[in-house]
Formats: sequence, C-alpha cells, structure tokens
Amino acid sequence: MKRIFEIDPWHITTDKFSIENRRLQESMTSLGNEYMGMRGFFEEDYSGDSLPGIYIGGVWFPDKTRVGWWKNGYPEYFGKVINALNFIKINTLINGHHLDLAKDTITDFKLDLDMKQGLLTRSFILVRGDLRIGFKFQRFLSLAQKELSAQQVTVTNLSAKSVVLELQASLDADVVNEDSNYGDHFWNVTQQVAHETTGYMATETIPNNFGTPRFTLGVGMTNQVQGLHAEAAKTSDLEVTNDFNGQLAPNATVVLDKKVIVTTSRDYETDQLQSKTEALLAKVSGASFAQLLAAHAQAWAQRWQISDIQIQGDAEAQQGIRFNLFQLFSTYYGEDKRLNIGPKGFTGEKYGGATYWDTEAFALPVYLGISDPKVARHLLEYRHQQLPGAVHNAQQQGLKGALYPMVTFNGIENHNEWEITFEEIHRNGTIAYAIYNYTRYTGDDSYLKTQGIDVLVGIARFWADRVHYSKRRQKYVIHGVTGPNEYENNVNNNWYTNLLAQWTLKYTLATLPKVSSDKAAQLQVSSEEAQHWQDIIANIYLGVDEETGVFIQNDDFFDKDIRPASSLKPEERPINQHWSWDKVLRSPFIKQADVLQGIWYFIDDFDMATKKRNFDFYEPLTVHESSLSPSVHAILAADLNEDDKAVEMYARTARLDLDNYNNDTEDGLHITSMTGAWLAIVQGFAGMRIRDGKLHFKPFLPKQWTAYQFRVLFRGRLIEVNVDATGTTLKLRQGEPLTVDLAGDSLNLTREDR
Amino acid sequence: MKRIFEIDPWHITTDKFSIENRRLQESMTSLGNEYMGMRGFFEEDYSGDSLPGIYIGGVWFPDKTRVGWWKNGYPEYFGKVINALNFIKINTLINGHHLDLAKDTITDFKLDLDMKQGLLTRSFILVRGDLRIGFKFQRFLSLAQKELSAQQVTVTNLSAKSVVLELQASLDADVVNEDSNYGDHFWNVTQQVAHETTGYMATETIPNNFGTPRFTLGVGMTNQVQGLHAEAAKTSDLEVTNDFNGQLAPNATVVLDKKVIVTTSRDYETDQLQSKTEALLAKVSGASFAQLLAAHAQAWAQRWQISDIQIQGDAEAQQGIRFNLFQLFSTYYGEDKRLNIGPKGFTGEKYGGATYWDTEAFALPVYLGISDPKVARHLLEYRHQQLPGAVHNAQQQGLKGALYPMVTFNGIENHNEWEITFEEIHRNGTIAYAIYNYTRYTGDDSYLKTQGIDVLVGIARFWADRVHYSKRRQKYVIHGVTGPNEYENNVNNNWYTNLLAQWTLKYTLATLPKVSSDKAAQLQVSSEEAQHWQDIIANIYLGVDEETGVFIQNDDFFDKDIRPASSLKPEERPINQHWSWDKVLRSPFIKQADVLQGIWYFIDDFDMATKKRNFDFYEPLTVHESSLSPSVHAILAADLNEDDKAVEMYARTARLDLDNYNNDTEDGLHITSMTGAWLAIVQGFAGMRIRDGKLHFKPFLPKQWTAYQFRVLFRGRLIEVNVDATGTTLKLRQGEPLTVDLAGDSLNLTREDR
Repeated sequence: MKRIFEIDPWHITTDKFSIENRRLQESMTSLGNEYMGMRGFFEEDYSGDSLPGIYIGGVWFPDKTRVGWWKNGYPEYFGKVINALNFIKINTLINGHHLDLAKDTITDFKLDLDMKQGLLTRSFILVRGDLRIGFKFQRFLSLAQKELSAQQVTVTNLSAKSVVLELQASLDADVVNEDSNYGDHFWNVTQQVAHETTGYMATETIPNNFGTPRFTLGVGMTNQVQGLHAEAAKTSDLEVTNDFNGQLAPNATVVLDKKVIVTTSRDYETDQLQSKTEALLAKVSGASFAQLLAAHAQAWAQRWQISDIQIQGDAEAQQGIRFNLFQLFSTYYGEDKRLNIGPKGFTGEKYGGATYWDTEAFALPVYLGISDPKVARHLLEYRHQQLPGAVHNAQQQGLKGALYPMVTFNGIENHNEWEITFEEIHRNGTIAYAIYNYTRYTGDDSYLKTQGIDVLVGIARFWADRVHYSKRRQKYVIHGVTGPNEYENNVNNNWYTNLLAQWTLKYTLATLPKVSSDKAAQLQVSSEEAQHWQDIIANIYLGVDEETGVFIQNDDFFDKDIRPASSLKPEERPINQHWSWDKVLRSPFIKQADVLQGIWYFIDDFDMATKKRNFDFYEPLTVHESSLSPSVHAILAADLNEDDKAVEMYARTARLDLDNYNNDTEDGLHITSMTGAWLAIVQGFAGMRIRDGKLHFKPFLPKQWTAYQFRVLFRGRLIEVNVDATGTTLKLRQGEPLTVDLAGDSLNLTREDR
Repeated sequence: MKRIFEIDPWHITTDKFSIENRRLQESMTSLGNEYMGMRGFFEEDYSGDSLPGIYIGGVWFPDKTRVGWWKNGYPEYFGKVINALNFIKINTLINGHHLDLAKDTITDFKLDLDMKQGLLTRSFILVRGDLRIGFKFQRFLSLAQKELSAQQVTVTNLSAKSVVLELQASLDADVVNEDSNYGDHFWNVTQQVAHETTGYMATETIPNNFGTPRFTLGVGMTNQVQGLHAEAAKTSDLEVTNDFNGQLAPNATVVLDKKVIVTTSRDYETDQLQSKTEALLAKVSGASFAQLLAAHAQAWAQRWQISDIQIQGDAEAQQGIRFNLFQLFSTYYGEDKRLNIGPKGFTGEKYGGATYWDTEAFALPVYLGISDPKVARHLLEYRHQQLPGAVHNAQQQGLKGALYPMVTFNGIENHNEWEITFEEIHRNGTIAYAIYNYTRYTGDDSYLKTQGIDVLVGIARFWADRVHYSKRRQKYVIHGVTGPNEYENNVNNNWYTNLLAQWTLKYTLATLPKVSSDKAAQLQVSSEEAQHWQDIIANIYLGVDEETGVFIQNDDFFDKDIRPASSLKPEERPINQHWSWDKVLRSPFIKQADVLQGIWYFIDDFDMATKKRNFDFYEPLTVHESSLSPSVHAILAADLNEDDKAVEMYARTARLDLDNYNNDTEDGLHITSMTGAWLAIVQGFAGMRIRDGKLHFKPFLPKQWTAYQFRVLFRGRLIEVNVDATGTTLKLRQGEPLTVDLAGDSLNLTREDR
C-alpha cells in the first residue's frame, strides 16, 4: 500500500513532486472521454522515468507473437493498444534552456485532477539562480466535442528581470510501446502540414500480415499565444512544431492555448480526415479555453447527477468511489457501440486488447444501475456483433458453437497463453449470464429473444461439445480449464466453470420456447440436441468435499498444502511479485473469487449455511491479487452480515489504485475493477437485489460512516437511497410509482413533488 | 510418411529435383563436423522456398522474449542458435543471367550425400534454348581441420557455342533467423578485407542486455579458378565477393575451388581472429580439394570402423541406421567439452538451445557404446560445469538445490514456457540417472565420487524441496509437473517423475558413504537431511490403478476418455498438426514413453508381468509424435519378446527423418533421436544389458533380416556381435579377455588373433 495523493472529496491532488512516483502519478491523473484518453504525463519533455501514453479508442495493432513454441490453434496475433502520436507536447525553454522537472529545481508544486469537471492542472515555480518563473499547465479531453483535446499553459515571470521564453507546441509521432522488444514503431507518418500557428499530421499503422484493418489518424492543432512571436513552423520526419518566443518582462504573463482535433479512419474516409479535422478545429477556434471547459464540465455534471455516491464520515471512502466512477466513465460511457472497456482503459499498455469478461461480470451491472439502458444494451450488442468471431474461436479449438475470446478487439481471440486462451473458458458463461442479468434488470426481453438467443445457443453448443463423459466417474466432466482463480491453471472440473456450463444449458433451453418460430427455425436446435443438453444438466459433476462440505474448487484441490493467506509473511505479498509462478500455482492461495464468483452470480439460489460455509473456507485462502476480487467478497460478506469484512473488502476495491494495494498501478489503472466500489456499496452495503422483477434493498451502515446516498436507474425510474444511523429512506426522483422491497417490507414509492 | 530419397546403403541420393520438397531435401543433406554445420541449401541464390542456414557450435544469441504475460521466475531470455554468415555462397551467371533452379530448366539432376566420406554432391545440366551447361557442386566440412569448409564447383559447356561464365564466390552476412518476428539481424559486420581471390569478414553478435557473451566470427576465403579472369574484389555493407568471369568454349570445363576458414572468439582473442584465419588458410592453400577430402574421409572411416552396423536383408533398415549415426556424429563427437547435442543439431533453427535432457537419456548410452569413454565423460562434465546455473534455476523458482535447465547454452534456463521450464522437472532425474549409467557401464566411479556427487546432492535437494506432504493422502506428492508425455501439462503425481525423485534420493544416499571425507564435509548433508530424504523415499506416492493394475501416469488420467491411438483417423495424424493444443491436452494420447520411460531406465527392477501390463496398456495410447518415442518402445517390446512390435518401432525410429514420419523434417533433423535406431538394435534386438558390471546379450533376428552385425566398446574392449539365422556369434576385436552373458550362458571372449 502506498498513498501519494491527498484525501479530498473531489480532487486527486498533491503538492509533492516525486521523481520516484512519477509513473504512479501519471496513472492516477489519467484523462479520457471514451473516444480517446491519456496518462498524466507532462506536456514538456521529461528525462526522468515516465510512461507517456495517448491511446485512441478502437485503434490497435496485431503484433506478431510467433515464438518457437507456437502450437496449433494459437492465435495468429496479439492485439495491442498502441500509443498514438503525442499531441499534447509543449516544450518550454527559458533563456534557451529546456524546462525538465527531472533536473530543474522547483517550488510550490501542485498537481490536481478535478474529478467534478474532468480537468488536470499542474503548477509550480521554476527556480534557476535568481530567476523565478511560474507555470500552470491545464488540459482536458472534451466530453462535449469528443475529438477535442484542449490545453492551456500560463507562464508568469516572477523575477526582477526579463527572460527569453520559447514555447514549442507540437505533434510528435516518435512514440513506441514500452513492451515492444526492439522499439518497433507501429505508425508511419503519411502527411504533414505546418503553418505558423497550426499544424496537421496524418499517421497510418504499419502493414500487417493478418488482414486486420490499418488505422489512420488525422491530427490537427491550432496554437494561440498573446505576447510571443510565432516563428515559421518546423517539421521533421516525425514532428510538426509551432514555435513561439519572445521576451517575458518581470510580472508579465503569457498564455498559450493549444487545441487539438483527432479524427480517425474509424469514422471517416482516409482522404477526408484533413478536411474533417480542419472543420472541427474551425468549429472550436472561436471559443476560449474557459468556454470549452464549461461545456465539458456541464457534461460531467450530468453524469454525476445520476451516478454520484455521497458518503458522510469517511473521506477516504468518498474519494475512492468518485475516483472509480470518474475513471470508469472516462473509459466508456456507451456512446460508441464498437467500443468496450479495456482493463487498463486509456491509462496503460498492459493487457493488450479492448475487451475481457470483466465487462459482463463487473461493468454491466454498474452501467445498468447508473446509465441509460442503451449503454448496457450496447455492451450486449457488441458481443452479438462479434458472434462470428466467437464461432471462429471455437473452430480453432476444433469445437462446436461459440467461444468468446479472453482478449479481443474484433471478436477473434488474440491472446496467446494456452492456459488462458484455450482454458479460461468460464468467460463464455459470463457472456451468457450478462444476457440474463440485463433481461432481469430491465425487464426487457427483446434482446434476449432476438440476438441474445443466438449467443446463448452458440455458447450452449460449445459447452455441450467441451464436456466429456467420464466412465470412471459416471459423470460429465470438464477437463483442462483455468477458473477465475488464475493461480491454478489447467485444472479439471473447476466447480464454477461446470456450474456456468450447466446454467447456460438450462437458461438456453428455458429461453428457446419463447423465441419466434422464425428464430427457432434458424437456430435448429433439434430435440436430440436438447435431450443431450438435458443429460448434461442432469449429470454434470459438481464436486462437494465430504470432509468440509464445501464445493470443490477443482479436482485435487484438497491435496494441496492448505493454509490461510494470513500465514504469509508481509514481505511475500503480493505473491505474484515475490514468488515464482511455479510456487504460486502449487500454492493453495486464490487470486480472486472462484467458487464464490458462482455463489455471487446466483446468490439467491444458495441457502445461508452453504454460502457461509464456502465463504468461510475460501475467503481466508484468497489473496485478492486480482483487482476484481474484493468487490465480490464485499457483497457476499454483506449478504452474510459480516459487516466488518464487507467494509474491509470495500476499502480494498475503492482505493485499490489510490492506495496502490497491488503495487502495480504505475502500469495503469485497473479500469474494469473501478466498478467494484459501486457494487460493494449498492449490492453489498445496500443489499440491492432483483427478485422476480422487483427491486430489493437490505441496507446497513458501515460503522465508520455516518450516512451514504446513491441513486439507481431502474425501469424508467431514478431511485435515491439514503442510509444513515436512523435507517434507510428511499425516494423516487424520476418516473412512475414503483413498489420496492426494503428489508422484507414492501414500499410504494411515488414522486414527492407530485 | 514421405520418402524422397532412394534406398542405398551409403548414400542419401535422388535424381528428382523438387521445388516442393526443397526444405526437406535441405534438412536431409545437412553436413556437420561438430565445430560447425549447415543445411543442404544451394550455393547459388535460389528464389524458391528454402531455409538456408549455417550454424557454429556454441555460438548463440539471447533473444528477448518479454511479452505481456511474462511472470515472476520466467527466464529473461530465449537462447537461440543463430544463422551465421553464408560462406558457401557462389552465384553463377551464364551470359549475364543468374542460375536459379527455381526458374531455370534443368536435366540430369542428381543430389547425393555420401555418408561414408561425408561429401555432398549436386550435379545437373542447365538448359537454356540450345545451350547446355553441366554443373557439379561439391562440399564438405572437414573432420581433419575443423575450421575448414571446402567446396568445388565444376562447370562444363556442353553446347556448340561459347558462353560467358561468371562465378561470384562470396561471404554474405545478410542472413536472418526465420523465426525473428521483424527480420532482426543478430550480427554486425565489424571488418571486411577483400582482394581479387581472397576475402575476409568479421562479424560480431549485436549487444544484448543479459550479460551473456557476444561472439565474433572471423571468416576468410580463398578462391582458385583456372580459365577465368579474376575481377577486382567487391564489397558491400554485408558482403565480400571474389568475381571471376570469362568465355567458356564448347566442351571446356572450369573448376572453382573455394576454401573457407571459420574462427571464433570462443577459441581466440577477437583481435587475433584475422591472423589465425589467415594462418589456417595458408595451411590448407597448397592442398587440392581431393587431398583435403581424402584426409576428411579418412577420419570418417575411423568412426565407421567402430560404429558401423551392418544389416543384411533389409536395405531400408541399413540406410536408416547409417544415416542416423552419420548425422549424430556430424553434430557431436565429443572433441569440445563446451558443446552438447542440440535437438536439431546444425540442421535447423527450431528448439533454440544446445542442450536438452535428450543428451543424457538417449545419446549418452550410444556414445558409451561406440566412442571413446572420454566422450561420455565430457557430456557429464558439461553438466558439472553448469551446476551453478542449475542452482540459479532452482533459486529462480524459490527452491533449494539444483534444477538443470530444459534448454540451455550456459546452464541457465532459457526456455520460456512455464509448463516446460518450471514443470518438466523430470529432466533433473535423467541428469542423475546418467551418472549412474556412465558409472555402471564404464566401471569407473571417479566421476561419481568427485563431481557426480555434487550434481546428485544438488538434484536430491531440489526433489526434497519440490515435494509436499498431502495430509489427505498421507503421502508425499509432486504437484504441477509435465512428464515426458508433453501432451499433458501441469499434472499432479506423474509416476515417472515421482519415481525418478525417489530413485535420485536413494542413489545419492547410497553414494554419499563412498566419497572422501573432504568431499562429504563440503557437501554438508546432515543426518536430519538424510533422514528427511529417507522419509520421502518411504512415503512418496506412486500410484497403481486398482482396476487395471498399471502405474497411474498421473492423477485423473483414468477420468479421460481413454481410447487407443488406432481409433484415430489417418487424416488426424500427427495430432499435434491437426488438433488444437487444447484437444491434444485433454486427449488420452501419449506423445512419447512416460511410464514406460521409467520402466526402460530400470528394466531389470520390474517383473515381466508388470512390464507387460504397462506396455500393453500404454503403448496403444501412444502416438509416438516425439521422435524420442519409438526407440524406448522398441527396446521394451524386444524385452517382452514382442518381436514384431519391436521391429515396427525400429522402422519408425531408424527412418523417422528419411521417411518424414512426423511431417516436420523440413524444419531440420531430429538429431538426438538419431540415437534411437542404435538403441533399438543394441538394447532391443540384441538385448544388451549391464548387470553387476557384466555385459549381457539376448539377441533375436528380425524376421525381415538375414543377419546383422555391430560392435560395442566396453571397458577397454571392442566386442563384435554377429546375429544371423544360425544364432549369435560374439568376437573380441580389441582388449583383454572378458566374460559376457549370452542368453543366460557365460562366455569367455578372447582375441582370435592371439
């Protein structure tokens, strides 16, 4: 655990400049507007350790991954998010010497991410001999105009004598991805245009052998400065620069406004990018930085109005939940249904690929609760649109039906670890479960009956082909899987996987009679096939350990040297950073909810004793080294009335990145885990459930808190939940009257203002 | 199966030029002299599909392998054999047009690898319009002067009119490894010298971040041609060329002799390479091609005198065994104890790394039988010298003792698949077993007591730390391993692995009392430690299946859908080329001997019923898709008097590459498997065993054969074994009288010529 920012309800802020923690600061001060995003790296060149990164939604490259041990069925390429060109670059020179915070002396440093309006500000005073120069850098990526990046740099001479100031605002395509083994460039510059105060550059991804689309970016900038002379524009192979310089008198201030428009071949024909970029630049050129910011902040205010959670009595928790929602929404807000939620969003390069099962498991319920239902539906449609890819993936394994990818941009699996790619097939169950989750929450079965059933039948066919019948056990078994606990690989009969396989078959069979006859005819599920599915449902192996009575995570688990995570020494944790992978795999320690993930999905289907028995057995073995782990445990602990454990788990999920719990946030934020705090509060502390189409709550107030309030959207209503020491108050803020269940009591909610 | 060469006792020969099978031809016509080797690619540029490759023993590069999923304990680099510069290159132009067999029309093609003298010859007649030009290319890598590559090109004008002939003999550093993702060059050219008929080039491997040595090659050539004019030498960035041209009258012949000397920084200081190269060139410059060839062929004759196996009545089998020994000895003959036997030798790039457990398991017994005992001892010393690397490897896994690498050049593991690197630890058992095997064969326990015991204690400590005690089973178990059957990964309690762990502990404890007190003091095996080893020996789990009575290959094996390999369709085989890896892993099919490998190692320790039960159960499940598989099965089948099965397995091992059984010989030969045919004949058909220091034979004659003869070296004697329809004759060819056991009878062998 490492906390490098102040506790503040709406700000991520610090007055400490830290070379050592620069990457961590960069991750935490990331900005995004779904269309694009960036880490909080500096505008000017910085010679210290840093991971500069700007990424454009849906833009990627299929990197080669063939190594000696490539095997049949392995994906051909590893899709990776690629660092786009650096369009925020502004180098600054004072009397001809570059500003470089790794080398210069500074005072009055302040770094501030304003989450309320989505604005990043950095200010400091440069000290060189008797010179004192004040700097303020501000920037945002507009929600109001998705292609717009707006920056303002303010430089004030606080010295008694004049200095020569030079500002170099540029577009720089000399960028690499950090994990490229030989510093490979993934972009070619195809066009450069430069004038004194404007510039344009087009870059195209290099050719690939896999037939995936090449992307072109068209990036234009305008720079406005009062009080400096604009030189002739400079271009080099990979850079276009507008250069401004002049004398800065004592107490004088110069302000540079840099506006950048980024267009892509995803939205426009390549030959139209320049004209589109120029048109968009023209549209914003008359507006001041403050005006553009106001429009942007207004859009954030609308988001917060629905989604904000207020916590009294615990400033850390308050900051945590807002940071999570801010970063989640910066990554995805459902505007573009071709996009999804990458596990690092726009905050890092690790985990190449846009889409993991995290989306359906953890993000979908949050978007269902606090955004327009179309957002959740877009997420489902994304998977339906990629069904051909999933069929391809199954075929690659020699299997029937559809196997949704572990990692993808386009539906085709592009992750290259066999124990994940081939084996972590439980993901398929979550894709199916999300359809159920959406349908029961919204009450809208139109997706289920038209597109969802295509997905369900594809997945059901996969499961039916992937099981085999063990003559020895007289049961259907599933060999060679990796469960959600990735600290065991290639195990047999992962209980969670088998459970989801069984459930998918059941749900698919239950749905089929509801679809239209045309759809049924198209799906061609024969009675023999349905009968085979029934046989699997009835005879699939779901192990229960005789001695402990708990569900058996997987075969041979009880042969391990079972001991609690509390027996680990602090210096051994996180074990994935201190132990060899071999030792991790053979240990009894669980990365994230596995059996318990299944119990969470079907929380009303298990009696309390069963839930408690399994929670009490598995939670102590769990090291929560996946950012996706604590939230599930918080919800289950709350369900079992283990309030303290629930609060402990909440703290880990809500402040996972803010407090760098897993010591890896410098690589980027855990975006899909940003959902965990919301889930822990709403499904955990407030006990929100959907049962037979009815909303249920059973809240408790964490001891440390004096009150909390959140709002959820449910079937056209906006419901506000207030919990304090006196109890729970439910208010209907929008929509028609509704009956909800509060801790067993039925309440009729109506609008107070009626 | 695909056979593209003629059956011939001493030649690999064909008169069919095949663009389609070019790579396969190249593999099969590889040459080597332990110091260096090359595939049978053409001297002149060839625009068809080809894998040109020249490799220098002990020269390698640590390629980067970090990808997104790199995990703690993974090796930092992947060591690979790298393609050295192409020094055999001779481009040929007729009337200004390049000879290119992919495009030209030719007749009378003949390709011939003479195994008796180690000479590769290619001849053909080029047809262009009414032109007819005869070509003959010959080359060898000298056994008499290891740094020497000698070539001769003969061009004859068979046409009625003169042509202009140009021969361009060069050293070309523009080479890449085929598996490099972005065509990376691993060499920098550091020096070029060119004169009319000589040239020199030095190349150095590019820098690496891993602290492993960089290698420099110094390569010099001299070219002698009668009848053509020598142009001024040409140099370009990566090439040095001697260019000869002139008129070739009808019926005239031109002969080019190209001699190349290759020196390396492995043997000399970098700044001495040029002078050493020139001195060696001077030494051979006076000798004709025929003279150099005679010295080379003489060295081959000495090898064949001891090692040749003669088979009557089966020309295919005869060719197979000679091809195997030829290619094995071309790779390694024990001259340089820093070298080892890479699985592809000098014939391909697959399986980067020089040294696998194949050496100890399969090659050591062959070298013990047919080469000077120092060769086997060199192989053992190689491992002792790399003990620090093995200790490092164990530490990387957080384990005590020594873990010998799966793949290495320098003792450090450099293969990067967790299921192999971390898990295929049975290799450690074979390293220990080889010490036992050497000691019992030679009767020389000096290695065992001085160096071998260091290795044994290191390995024993590894096993003692790698097991864990299962409270449920009340047994020591070994979780998370991959056995020799790599078609199952990450299994628990692989019987073979557990057996070798137990055996190593036993053998180490039995050896310790025999070492000097100084050595014992240095090893510091405490009585507590020894007691713990005894406890493991007594209580390690070695599963026996109740229903079938066979040893359980690994936990859960009997839950598989067990069916014989004969149930596979022909078009599914080899399954590793037709099935996804997922399907392979979940199948019951076995890549190579696993339980049976253990039974082979300790063949005298199991009763016939046990051996038969396990053979009859496991062999039918085995697809023999490892080239190391058939030989073990041949030996066991012979032991069980299943002669036909033994012969069937012999055919697969002896002609594995000649008949391309596994459809992958185009990538290179299976060098370590070249031992299999010898093992199958000597340990299988002839039933050779060592029991209590005494040599035993129990031969049978395969039905298809009329007779066979081989010789083995044993404790200073050379014994000749002749088997024909009348029975077996043993002759002592060299050394003191000896008593051997022939099918239960004791025979006293004395030299007939005494």
